[in-house]
Amino acid sequence: MPNQVVYVKDKHTKLFIPGPTEVKKEIIEEMEEWMFGHRSEKMTELFTTMTEDTKKFLGTENDVIILSTSGTLFMESSIMNCVDDKVLCSTCGSFSQRQADIAERLGKNVDRLEYEWGKAVKPEDVREALEKKDYDAFTCVMNETSTGIRNPLEEIGEVMKDYPETLFIVDAISALGGDYIDIEGSNIDVIFTSVQKAFAMPPGLAVCVVNDKAYEREANSKSASWYAGFQRNIDYYNKKGQTHSTPAISLMLAYRKQMKRMLEEGHKVRDQRHKDMAEYTQKWAKKHFDMFPEKGYWSQTVSTIKNTQGLNINELRQEIDEKYGIQFSNGYGKQLKEKTFRIGHMGEHTVEDVKELTDAIEEVAGL
Amino acid sequence: MPNQVVYVKDKHTKLFIPGPTEVKKEIIEEMEEWMFGHRSEKMTELFTTMTEDTKKFLGTENDVIILSTSGTLFMESSIMNCVDDKVLCSTCGSFSQRQADIAERLGKNVDRLEYEWGKAVKPEDVREALEKKDYDAFTCVMNETSTGIRNPLEEIGEVMKDYPETLFIVDAISALGGDYIDIEGSNIDVIFTSVQKAFAMPPGLAVCVVNDKAYEREANSKSASWYAGFQRNIDYYNKKGQTHSTPAISLMLAYRKQMKRMLEEGHKVRDQRHKDMAEYTQKWAKKHFDMFPEKGYWSQTVSTIKNTQGLNINELRQEIDEKYGIQFSNGYGKQLKEKTFRIGHMGEHTVEDVKELTDAIEEVAGL
Repeated sequence: MPNQVVYVKDKHTKLFIPGPTEVKKEIIEEMEEWMFGHRSEKMTELFTTMTEDTKKFLGTENDVIILSTSGTLFMESSIMNCVDDKVLCSTCGSFSQRQADIAERLGKNVDRLEYEWGKAVKPEDVREALEKKDYDAFTCVMNETSTGIRNPLEEIGEVMKDYPETLFIVDAISALGGDYIDIEGSNIDVIFTSVQKAFAMPPGLAVCVVNDKAYEREANSKSASWYAGFQRNIDYYNKKGQTHSTPAISLMLAYRKQMKRMLEEGHKVRDQRHKDMAEYTQKWAKKHFDMFPEKGYWSQTVSTIKNTQGLNINELRQEIDEKYGIQFSNGYGKQLKEKTFRIGHMGEHTVEDVKELTDAIEEVAGL
Repeated sequence: MPNQVVYVKDKHTKLFIPGPTEVKKEIIEEMEEWMFGHRSEKMTELFTTMTEDTKKFLGTENDVIILSTSGTLFMESSIMNCVDDKVLCSTCGSFSQRQADIAERLGKNVDRLEYEWGKAVKPEDVREALEKKDYDAFTCVMNETSTGIRNPLEEIGEVMKDYPETLFIVDAISALGGDYIDIEGSNIDVIFTSVQKAFAMPPGLAVCVVNDKAYEREANSKSASWYAGFQRNIDYYNKKGQTHSTPAISLMLAYRKQMKRMLEEGHKVRDQRHKDMAEYTQKWAKKHFDMFPEKGYWSQTVSTIKNTQGLNINELRQEIDEKYGIQFSNGYGKQLKEKTFRIGHMGEHTVEDVKELTDAIEEVAGL
């Protein structure tokens, strides 16, 4: 039966918040399908297509796990699966701190390589810390959503090469799919994201890319996650092309279609489009305000802008939402809430879309 | 703006598999909404409505956590959060065995109270085991989906009252919402389900009901889950009425509407409807075949029927699917696959719906 025309309910608000991002109408419409069994051939076809397309898009030979959860669970399970005792967590904002908090809550022995909010993690500091002590793993956020920092993963990966016993775990939640990363080339053992960021899909699924070293580490460990276990998910997929537990079927239908779209555009072209949006936003920010994060490490997906004009960000946001149906974000956390504001330029947006927002800000704030 | 008429795509197949179950068209259509921020008032309203309605429906004063995941993660996190060392897991089929496997994979000290597949867990055996050794928790499945056993939780709960240091953890994945349970009255400390079973919602969300004792146990423990941590979820909800991480927004829209429907019907009436379906199915099964599980413990939501007629279950299933657009399940696991078949009578179905399936089986199998 051919697809029928469907209408998306409710008022459309264009989202420039750092997630969930704008999801295309036709992707939302994919969820309009009756339930079907998760042990059916239909599911096998759906799930293998999604998984193989994701591998292709990311250009990786590593295993790809797509799980019904938020990316946060992979922050937890990558520690459960790969860290027996000691882990070094670099922190430079709220989400990288969360990674360290999670590891601590799991009862692990956590050392923090701490940076002031707005600063990036430096490869030489990582080397210094790894020289001093042996760690099971080192964690680093690719894109710190709270501060708008893009950490130099590629250079940090060069350092990690010299410490093969320390797994390199990367939280790429607001970056992957919108900011190109060569996973194998950067010596990354585990990298994960949520789909509601640069993938531009409805939230509820998360993706984790795992190499053999991380898989083996888990397989030989005394304790690990079952639900988000690398072994459990990868083995089940390789054997049956399905998920070990009932997955979020509706969201997977949306995923399949959006991943086809991403494949068609290609990782490098998508990366360039995000680069263009970031450069446009940065230029605009420097003209009217200032960038918050350390120069040289500005995020390609989220710009955190200093509120140098002392605007009331909450009022500004509300007015722009009401007048133009466009949303952006205030700063993250108590300290940055009014001192900065954030524009998420990721997913399916273009420079023209971002310009709509910046025009609206200029108009309403009288810049 | 009023809701618009939408059409669900693809062929409709009526599902009598033990999950995912049939989801009403208007519930699927709820997902047709543009994304919105998970830190918005709209989300607070959505999430608090869902949570409070669920408490009301279940008739519990305990805390309710609704998390973006499969119920399987609560099998894992309830062990992580409540068990420091020793846990007793009763096993009587595939899913209760999975609970024990998960606890073992987490590195816990697991004793199994094992029953043959098809037999129910007996209160006196639980007492005997708890007399012999101290355990942090005891796990029991309410409804063993693989064998169609409904364990006597209420009586087991009476035993648990005498062992207050041992938390009573119940996997109610294919039962809750379709089989009445008095949570507090049965001395249950932690009970969880997936929404794609008797709740009749699209998969991807899970519900966990936690009492103060379990919350305190976690709060005082050296290690626990963060993502599925009771404390993390409950505190965040109490403070902000939201989720700690981006949730599956689309699925939550469907949840809200279906929970309203469930509330309107009421827990007891819903229970009676499921009882009627179960009794009808059992009577039919006894006429033409035989029930597989131990008498006195037949499930109210999934009937596992002995294939006494030596039918080719796979062929039968395929023919009924093609001719009538109705699906049921074969037996679970290698041993029971062809020796039994399973009818899931849960969610929104009625006796009339089940009769459609049994008529079809009679017709095709020439009974």
